[in-house]
Amino acid sequence: MAKNEKEFVKEIADMNEDFPRWYTDIVLKTELVDYGAVKGTMVIRPYGYAIWEIIQSELDKMIKATGHKNAYFPMLIPYSYLTKEAEHVEGFAPEVALVTKAGGEDLAEPLVIRPTSETIICEMYAKWVKSYRDLPMKLNQWCNVLRWEKTTRPFLRTSEFIWQEGHTLHSTEEEAQEETLTMLNVYKTFVEKFLSMPVLVGRKSDKEKFAGASATYTMEAMMKDGKSLQAGTSHNLGTHFAEAFNIKYLDKDGKQKYPFQTSWGVTTRLIGAMIMVHGDQRGLVLPPRVAPTQAIIIPIASHKEGVMEKCDELYNALKEKGVRIDIDDSEQSTGWKFNQSEMKGIPVRIEVGPRDLENGQVTLFRRDTLEKEVCPLEEVENRVPALIEQIADDMLVNARKFRDANIVDCKSLEDITNAVNDKKFARAMWCGCKECEDLIKATNGATSRVMEFEQKEVGDTCAVCGKKTKKVMIFARSY
Amino acid sequence: MAKNEKEFVKEIADMNEDFPRWYTDIVLKTELVDYGAVKGTMVIRPYGYAIWEIIQSELDKMIKATGHKNAYFPMLIPYSYLTKEAEHVEGFAPEVALVTKAGGEDLAEPLVIRPTSETIICEMYAKWVKSYRDLPMKLNQWCNVLRWEKTTRPFLRTSEFIWQEGHTLHSTEEEAQEETLTMLNVYKTFVEKFLSMPVLVGRKSDKEKFAGASATYTMEAMMKDGKSLQAGTSHNLGTHFAEAFNIKYLDKDGKQKYPFQTSWGVTTRLIGAMIMVHGDQRGLVLPPRVAPTQAIIIPIASHKEGVMEKCDELYNALKEKGVRIDIDDSEQSTGWKFNQSEMKGIPVRIEVGPRDLENGQVTLFRRDTLEKEVCPLEEVENRVPALIEQIADDMLVNARKFRDANIVDCKSLEDITNAVNDKKFARAMWCGCKECEDLIKATNGATSRVMEFEQKEVGDTCAVCGKKTKKVMIFARSY
Repeated sequence: MAKNEKEFVKEIADMNEDFPRWYTDIVLKTELVDYGAVKGTMVIRPYGYAIWEIIQSELDKMIKATGHKNAYFPMLIPYSYLTKEAEHVEGFAPEVALVTKAGGEDLAEPLVIRPTSETIICEMYAKWVKSYRDLPMKLNQWCNVLRWEKTTRPFLRTSEFIWQEGHTLHSTEEEAQEETLTMLNVYKTFVEKFLSMPVLVGRKSDKEKFAGASATYTMEAMMKDGKSLQAGTSHNLGTHFAEAFNIKYLDKDGKQKYPFQTSWGVTTRLIGAMIMVHGDQRGLVLPPRVAPTQAIIIPIASHKEGVMEKCDELYNALKEKGVRIDIDDSEQSTGWKFNQSEMKGIPVRIEVGPRDLENGQVTLFRRDTLEKEVCPLEEVENRVPALIEQIADDMLVNARKFRDANIVDCKSLEDITNAVNDKKFARAMWCGCKECEDLIKATNGATSRVMEFEQKEVGDTCAVCGKKTKKVMIFARSY
Repeated sequence: MAKNEKEFVKEIADMNEDFPRWYTDIVLKTELVDYGAVKGTMVIRPYGYAIWEIIQSELDKMIKATGHKNAYFPMLIPYSYLTKEAEHVEGFAPEVALVTKAGGEDLAEPLVIRPTSETIICEMYAKWVKSYRDLPMKLNQWCNVLRWEKTTRPFLRTSEFIWQEGHTLHSTEEEAQEETLTMLNVYKTFVEKFLSMPVLVGRKSDKEKFAGASATYTMEAMMKDGKSLQAGTSHNLGTHFAEAFNIKYLDKDGKQKYPFQTSWGVTTRLIGAMIMVHGDQRGLVLPPRVAPTQAIIIPIASHKEGVMEKCDELYNALKEKGVRIDIDDSEQSTGWKFNQSEMKGIPVRIEVGPRDLENGQVTLFRRDTLEKEVCPLEEVENRVPALIEQIADDMLVNARKFRDANIVDCKSLEDITNAVNDKKFARAMWCGCKECEDLIKATNGATSRVMEFEQKEVGDTCAVCGKKTKKVMIFARSY
């Protein structure tokens, strides 16, 4: 067992020494993902995809519960669509992939593989929306998108990724704004509950907003190396796209009007975020509500009478209780199985050995705290489901404590630089101008991440230029 | 109401006069689908996508129950991969779309948007499979694929479509063959149960097999115009791709060997098949087990005391029973609602009016047979779920009767021509050579569809060339 542990340490980089390398080692070694043949692409392997399937299934329920329906729009977009909204094309043109030949012929107009679907959806909305009775229009789609990125990392930034993108139209500005914030809140509720991941929610600066939006709202999570990760965004698009695509409806007052629009999305990068928030030196620590295997039974001295029978019995009892349960009856050593289950981040390990059985008990091991507890046999089927819920809640609390302890109030550019060099988020007053954002970035690499809805003022003048202001911005380095 | 009915007749072509036009009218008018901007693409609208979500969810369970796991492979494939298997590139090269520019630069090698994923998956399998312990490898993915088609029709043949594709590796030829047939049987079981669609299962001719396969097995369904539709295929790939991609494993005997491979898929065309098998002059007739709305409550004289209360009560009771139930409390006329629910193909209509309520009953209307029955109020919550199941079963029986009545035993080329001109399937003895297939196609447009597992011999010589044979082939025109 000692030998195995050493082997694992060798195979996974030390997270305190080289966090990015630790991340890459983990995602490859646990077979969540592999590199695709084309630069910047990833293959999502069964263990990784099983997590995504749970994320998709649970989030989909929440999206439907808020009145949205799923649809599917084509992946190929005529290049001319992209150019209709000026900011949008400026933002996305540099990173699109172009289809120029198909069916053995050169195409008259190149086609863009969707980097996002506002334009093609707007083209359909212009056809479908005629009257105020057609509003609100609230659609969502789950699909792949492609953005040609220079620097890529599995899950966090890949050229192709999977996401959901919601696209809605509303008759009033207020309703669109409400929708924008409702969906941001759905995301926040989702990641807190299912990924045990705390997020700061609020608004992006104009510099950091979506290409074509009036305002972008974001949730930002703190990784264990103190960097920020944008985990989901919700955009109030105003009437920018409606005007560009001539989406008009006949209102009750007999007038033709442009509807107000929103869009919002989360992606497979949530998996990367979850790993960087919870993982440790031993490997993954999966949040139990999305863990493909929530508990694993490991028989010890399985040849001894009664061990395997008891394992099977517990397996069936826990399966019956709705636990995603597995049993490792392979021929590997117990030490290997322990290490494996820890590296894979399985929330609860149930150790069943002859000595424990003699005492009418088993040992439960918590992956998050590495603590063991003894559990009487007859209580296992109730204790394990309760423990799973407890771990999910505790992981959120602990991640929130870690984050809050790593946000530093800053009064000057120097403070901000010290904070981010110290792997922390910098909370600072900010005048709102791009020049101050640019100067911060040039100085220490941090970007403006989020103006929280709940503003905690740390002064009344911009930390950079000294202008009077009431805006509080979180600055951090980011993925 | 009479006026409305006339309007609908006007809007939907007569299926006996112009079946393809009837189909197109139906899919657009019921808002299952719309045309995309790029030629040959479709937008799957919420009503159509809801059907696909049920198909995906139910079939996915069956795929997992047979030991497969889901994964996700990149959509972009280096062109050179496509060329590794000779037959494969010959079959797919003419219909691929090529990405030649990305991120503002010309690519050194063009990338293919996957028309199917054998090649990119094989490239990964070559990396992952090392030992006999890694076999069988049984993965599936749900994704979009693209084939540049000349003639397209929503659902039936579109350039982009959604599907699942299973890809497996096995250590023996027998196991691969068993897997090939197991998955064909999963498909058959699925379409019979969920789409109430009977299929003929068996083998394709060499001419019609998948590009790169040793053998292709198919399920073929008869549309209401007597044409055949290939509703799903399962391929035994032998070691063709393993050799081309150098997938090798170390067997127990210490030797390096090529594994045997299969692949199998069904697509969004299942929705088109289901429409063409069951639809009628009034519109869709949805098989209940995939109908997004299985029963709809229509209040009659809803202003009358007690009508809406009773509707709500029935709605809640049926929802509780797991029925996908809706209630049309819009301001439209009852006649409009009746027509609408029929056109949309909702399996059961529950008419709730004051006169019925006085008698303690409601009227149930079956979309498939257009029959009405009176149902005592207290029996509705049991009767409706039972009726839904009954309709699903009856639709399968009736579609099978229709199909079996439209297969004609043919002894000559002339017989075959007469059969297909008469909108029937031709069952004929066939020597097995491509020349006879080609001659049939040149004469009457029919292609070889399937050599059924259960062969019903209709002679002992080829209907075309007269050679002695034991092969029975179904010939038909097809979608």
